[in-house]
Amino acid sequence: MSGSNITAPTQFVDAGGERYAYRRVGGGTGLPLLCLQHFTGTLDNWDPAVTDPLAEDREVILFDNAGVGRSGGTVPNTVAGMAKHTFAFLDGLGIAICDVLGFSLGGMVAQQMALDRSSIFRRIILVATAPRGGDDIMHLEKPTLAPHLANPALRGFTVLQKIFFAPTEISQAAGAAFVARLQQRKEDREPPSGPAVAAAQMAAFREWEKPPARFSELANILQPTLVVSGIHDEMIPIANSYQLAGSLPNAVLLVYPDSGHGALFQFHEEFTRLASAFLSANSAAAPY
Amino acid sequence: MSGSNITAPTQFVDAGGERYAYRRVGGGTGLPLLCLQHFTGTLDNWDPAVTDPLAEDREVILFDNAGVGRSGGTVPNTVAGMAKHTFAFLDGLGIAICDVLGFSLGGMVAQQMALDRSSIFRRIILVATAPRGGDDIMHLEKPTLAPHLANPALRGFTVLQKIFFAPTEISQAAGAAFVARLQQRKEDREPPSGPAVAAAQMAAFREWEKPPARFSELANILQPTLVVSGIHDEMIPIANSYQLAGSLPNAVLLVYPDSGHGALFQFHEEFTRLASAFLSANSAAAPY
Repeated sequence: MSGSNITAPTQFVDAGGERYAYRRVGGGTGLPLLCLQHFTGTLDNWDPAVTDPLAEDREVILFDNAGVGRSGGTVPNTVAGMAKHTFAFLDGLGIAICDVLGFSLGGMVAQQMALDRSSIFRRIILVATAPRGGDDIMHLEKPTLAPHLANPALRGFTVLQKIFFAPTEISQAAGAAFVARLQQRKEDREPPSGPAVAAAQMAAFREWEKPPARFSELANILQPTLVVSGIHDEMIPIANSYQLAGSLPNAVLLVYPDSGHGALFQFHEEFTRLASAFLSANSAAAPY
Repeated sequence: MSGSNITAPTQFVDAGGERYAYRRVGGGTGLPLLCLQHFTGTLDNWDPAVTDPLAEDREVILFDNAGVGRSGGTVPNTVAGMAKHTFAFLDGLGIAICDVLGFSLGGMVAQQMALDRSSIFRRIILVATAPRGGDDIMHLEKPTLAPHLANPALRGFTVLQKIFFAPTEISQAAGAAFVARLQQRKEDREPPSGPAVAAAQMAAFREWEKPPARFSELANILQPTLVVSGIHDEMIPIANSYQLAGSLPNAVLLVYPDSGHGALFQFHEEFTRLASAFLSANSAAAPY
């Protein structure tokens, strides 16, 4: 293994008038893999059990969008605004083409970027995310989510065990292991996101949920795409992944059982094995 | 490669008062893989590009149910009846446990067998099939299917290019290649199925479509299961695979783009690679 998000130093790049925080993990012959993060997540929310195996054959680039972690600027209240910052970041690094893994909110940013500048991505992995105009996106007031978020005993990463994993013994155990892995990094950590980050990102979800036209623009994302979801995702329900698979012209859909929003963390060995195979393929078609 | 459905001899076994036709392809350390066939399909409808790679690590057993091909007896008009014959066949071969690949009608038989005798299967692959109580199962009168089936120019295997593949240039080319592969076997071929086979199997679909209770019994199929479908399947639409993934407690769902009922034949390299990995896994969980 050639690197780890447990130890990779946080770096900074000035681009487009902002300073962005990021980390580079591993390396290899593959194109870099840009990883775009979920609601309120920072560089420290990337599970090393996912980033590190993917980094064996390619450089994995983790990125804090504007206003998140130690990145400067203000959190945009639209996905399109987040896409603009991500372009500025990549331009600042001199990266004209890469692969992308967009998780949840990050998957929306990845879709927007693919529409705005199709040459930016070679292959796309969309995990636990939704198309523009999708249904039931991040409604944290739902009875399946709200009690966990309101529980004062579930501070910091620990609430993720409840809201990213299914309410079964096996999935909850995987969630506990995930939370423990996030705490392996001891130094150079990011500040956790506060209410201002959450509010702006939530506004972006609401804007993403109500577009002028539903789904038709997905026909323009021609990249080989891998869509991944847990069958019991309460935060962004599986119907959104079914819509992505039905509307993207070149997408393989992979759904895991007994898991929720964090299926990629629960099945980190299996997910990274299949995702690496997908990224290593050179076919114009998504199946790998 | 240790065997091929292009050349494997057709064999016969007497069991439970019937004589069943079958073929054994390949071999290896894995459990045998029983392959259960689609509507009107015989041993000759198994694509060697699917059977042969799977047979590199295990014996693949192809089976003509009662009344199909050179198997004796009468085609049952229920899936449960077909399951009974399949048990008699396996008992006749002395096989107490195996893996199964059930395609379309064969996937329904596989589900019924798993419910009737759970010890019979270790791992299950269900391709282009539907749960009991599923929707829009094999309605050949649909406008997307009927004209092809009524076209006298599309005789024998050639109609499969139209009804098993999506109406795109790439998928149709894959369909033509599939039809050509089915014709590679020159000797010892099965007689094609006639109207009596079709009528009895169609009655079985109708009975399968209208069960007393929908989906709940799927909770009893605990085997690691891989559910596979083409996104544009007109014969057994994708919603049925979504229902299977949502109701089976231990199933990974894999959906291919730009393909129909015959997605496993269109993406034979990719499908057999992933299916082999799934079958080679020993985890109690389906993800592999």
